[in-house]
Amino acid sequence: MHVGVFGTGMVGKAIGTKLVQLGHEVKMGSRTANNEKAAAWVKANGARATQGTFGDAAAFGEMLFNCTSGMGSLDALHSAGEKNLNGKVLVDISNPLDFSKGMPPSLFVCNTDSLAEQIQRAFPHANVVKALNTMNCNLMVNPSLVPGEHDVFLCGNDAGAKTKVKEILTSFGWESPIDLGDLSGARGMEMILMSWIRLMGVYQSPNFNYKIVR
Amino acid sequence: MHVGVFGTGMVGKAIGTKLVQLGHEVKMGSRTANNEKAAAWVKANGARATQGTFGDAAAFGEMLFNCTSGMGSLDALHSAGEKNLNGKVLVDISNPLDFSKGMPPSLFVCNTDSLAEQIQRAFPHANVVKALNTMNCNLMVNPSLVPGEHDVFLCGNDAGAKTKVKEILTSFGWESPIDLGDLSGARGMEMILMSWIRLMGVYQSPNFNYKIVR
Repeated sequence: MHVGVFGTGMVGKAIGTKLVQLGHEVKMGSRTANNEKAAAWVKANGARATQGTFGDAAAFGEMLFNCTSGMGSLDALHSAGEKNLNGKVLVDISNPLDFSKGMPPSLFVCNTDSLAEQIQRAFPHANVVKALNTMNCNLMVNPSLVPGEHDVFLCGNDAGAKTKVKEILTSFGWESPIDLGDLSGARGMEMILMSWIRLMGVYQSPNFNYKIVR
Repeated sequence: MHVGVFGTGMVGKAIGTKLVQLGHEVKMGSRTANNEKAAAWVKANGARATQGTFGDAAAFGEMLFNCTSGMGSLDALHSAGEKNLNGKVLVDISNPLDFSKGMPPSLFVCNTDSLAEQIQRAFPHANVVKALNTMNCNLMVNPSLVPGEHDVFLCGNDAGAKTKVKEILTSFGWESPIDLGDLSGARGMEMILMSWIRLMGVYQSPNFNYKIVR
């Protein structure tokens, strides 16, 4: 499959690299067509890895991953161009973390709204699926980094889009993603971050995850 | 130990009953001294169970449990009387759920503040410890209701108060409570509710819990 990945940070690189390893063709998108971090990633990942602008990556992909920082996500997606997003599955991994008031960060949207819903409203013809935002990026693409069973959540308004994302998650190693329903489930998924940050402080490591036991 | 339990709902009854079973003397407090639900609970729980006003329960207890609904917690605690709370361990189990705008509820405080912190600011000489708010009340006092290992969190500003609460949690069956640090950890603990509510909808049951796997 052709996949566009927005963002050249740790999350974008982890997702992009895993997708290339799984045989997909991946274009990493950023603000500029000759981003140094994207170029280094392309060089390290062979012929199936390419780079370009957000618009290039969006036009290229059948499925798109938003791996930009939450504060910049809407700008990045506007830069990608609405027509390049329309009708596509847009996996939103971003978190609405606001570091501008110091540590620990707060969320710039929560409770009665979410970043995923903001993105969906801004691009009503994209099929936004929230997923993978509740864990460290290395764990996203390698669940066995944390031993035993633990969970990944997803939610979205389009059942077909969620089915496609579940398939990708399964290919990443997630056996039974938990479907939290329509995209308003992203409120809970994003608000989990406030306990995640706290737990990272307790354990001094991002290598942990939530499991729902029942 | 003498314990005061504020609230005659499911949470107050579950906590009060467990404490009586463990040999503690428990006074259940409510708005009025002759609350019918409290009277029925007293009748069912023998000589170690008594009831009274919020003030009666607060004056009685060495340790206090806030099991009132979040919307009414501050009023209930003001009614209990600051002098009856001062210097005591106040275990806050409440959640800042606002049902006034329909279902699903939102939180009336979150992100940069929490209900537990509001309570601590209102009663600066009480030792507020947030605990047990991330699960159904039957599970609070009977972890084995959900099979296998899963977690309870706590946080608070006073180390001695947290030690006492950990001992109580251990007596409830929680082997290794996760200490999230000072009381600002209550933000994450209360915000977990937004995913909890969603998961209850998915499973159509409150009999589940979070486990931190690492």
